[in-house]
Amino acid sequence: MPQLLYTIDEVRKTIKNIKSSNKTIGLVPTMGYLHDGHISLINQSNKDNDITIISVFVNPTQFGVNEDFDSYPRDLKRDLSVLNDSVDYVFTPSKDIMYPSGFDTQIIVNKYSSGLCGVSRPGHFNGVAIVVTKLLNIITPDKVYFGEKDMQQYLLISQLIKDLNINVNAIGCTIIRESDGLAMSSRNVYLSNDERKQAPILYKALNLAKELVAKGLYNTEQIIKLVTATINTMPLAEIDYIEIRDMDSWEAIENIENGKVLLALAVKFGKTRLIDNMIINK
Amino acid sequence: MPQLLYTIDEVRKTIKNIKSSNKTIGLVPTMGYLHDGHISLINQSNKDNDITIISVFVNPTQFGVNEDFDSYPRDLKRDLSVLNDSVDYVFTPSKDIMYPSGFDTQIIVNKYSSGLCGVSRPGHFNGVAIVVTKLLNIITPDKVYFGEKDMQQYLLISQLIKDLNINVNAIGCTIIRESDGLAMSSRNVYLSNDERKQAPILYKALNLAKELVAKGLYNTEQIIKLVTATINTMPLAEIDYIEIRDMDSWEAIENIENGKVLLALAVKFGKTRLIDNMIINK
Repeated sequence: MPQLLYTIDEVRKTIKNIKSSNKTIGLVPTMGYLHDGHISLINQSNKDNDITIISVFVNPTQFGVNEDFDSYPRDLKRDLSVLNDSVDYVFTPSKDIMYPSGFDTQIIVNKYSSGLCGVSRPGHFNGVAIVVTKLLNIITPDKVYFGEKDMQQYLLISQLIKDLNINVNAIGCTIIRESDGLAMSSRNVYLSNDERKQAPILYKALNLAKELVAKGLYNTEQIIKLVTATINTMPLAEIDYIEIRDMDSWEAIENIENGKVLLALAVKFGKTRLIDNMIINK
Repeated sequence: MPQLLYTIDEVRKTIKNIKSSNKTIGLVPTMGYLHDGHISLINQSNKDNDITIISVFVNPTQFGVNEDFDSYPRDLKRDLSVLNDSVDYVFTPSKDIMYPSGFDTQIIVNKYSSGLCGVSRPGHFNGVAIVVTKLLNIITPDKVYFGEKDMQQYLLISQLIKDLNINVNAIGCTIIRESDGLAMSSRNVYLSNDERKQAPILYKALNLAKELVAKGLYNTEQIIKLVTATINTMPLAEIDYIEIRDMDSWEAIENIENGKVLLALAVKFGKTRLIDNMIINK
């Protein structure tokens, strides 16, 4: 069983001990309700580092006022049983430890917090930036792992780490999917049976786009139109956004050229908002 | 002579060596053009730590568009001769090393960046917050030293360090003054002879306020009126602000009660804007 750490002092003491024996540390920041996506990050961390620490903290500052902070699934017992012996430490602080009374600082990573999820979730990425900065400063890992399902988040955090000179390597890990293609997410438990059956259309639509590009269709307006039509074949799907952006400039592009191009989408099924994405190359 | 460090990689290697021998590190962040105020910070750091590092960097992000970034006095040769053997390392990065192309992150410490210098220097404290965060992440000192002449800055940085869980102790050091009471500042070199002669009125006015409080005058409006009148006896003085604030709540107060109360002021002499302050107790 991993050792549980609740306070920042406990973490600092633990880290000091680990570092004094010259061991390397990998951090996997999570909001709990662990699934195979998280496990893949943990496996990668265990491969790369001597010690793996997972944080389990449902971060209030990254939820909007009308979002699912209260209902977000929390079950530490379940998480510990999923983890079994796979990590060395679990840091699971209270809200008051992370945000004591008088907390007063904001971090804004401008470019990558605009567009896509930044539009429908204003303030979300500022909350992500602050909590990740805090976790990195508390745990001071050598490497930190993020799932590429949240590609916008991963790009934002990579920029944040570079800009603030945080001495850590941010590693993005491939999206892990259910057998029918649905990207794993703690929020998938919200889906009704009918919604769950229709949700794999997101991955099918992303694959369609990939095939279209492979066949020589580079006009993004047309690609987005066909992806939209595909998703709309599912009556319960309500599209939030479908966008194609250059991953460096973070600008919407008209034609797919060489370079790193991201097709990203967010679609609601009932009250559940799912996101998914794919990197597409000419 | 101290060793000069120009790049972040050089600093990280140096720090790794120092820490591997379990030595403690004190950082004194400066914008150069060193005076006895800086030297007092260095002396304190040398008392407290095995190794003292000073950074010399005129930080562009803390200057407004119409401020004195271009004319701010820079003379590394002079600084090194002032330093002599008093520090172990001088980190003097270029602008491009601190802010490479694509830099995109902002840090805002809300409460302490409002009021006082935050009004006449909009954006100033965001620039201070970002550069201090970067320096602390690059150098990872045990302790970091600030002069209390910039009390608002010191309070803001203390809040920032707490909120971001940066593992460092921020130490505020007493204001160092010329023999006639003028607080030491790199900007004092801007003053003409006449301005220089009139500038000590700031300290006289602060002392007057202290005496008034000691004599039982607690009404801040009246105290500020008398401080204003005192400063206005100098024809070249142009008051920017004179304020009395509670150091915790950062609110202007009507009557001086128990607790930490700051009398802070900014006054222009010609083009030169000077600041000074005093903690006053009932």
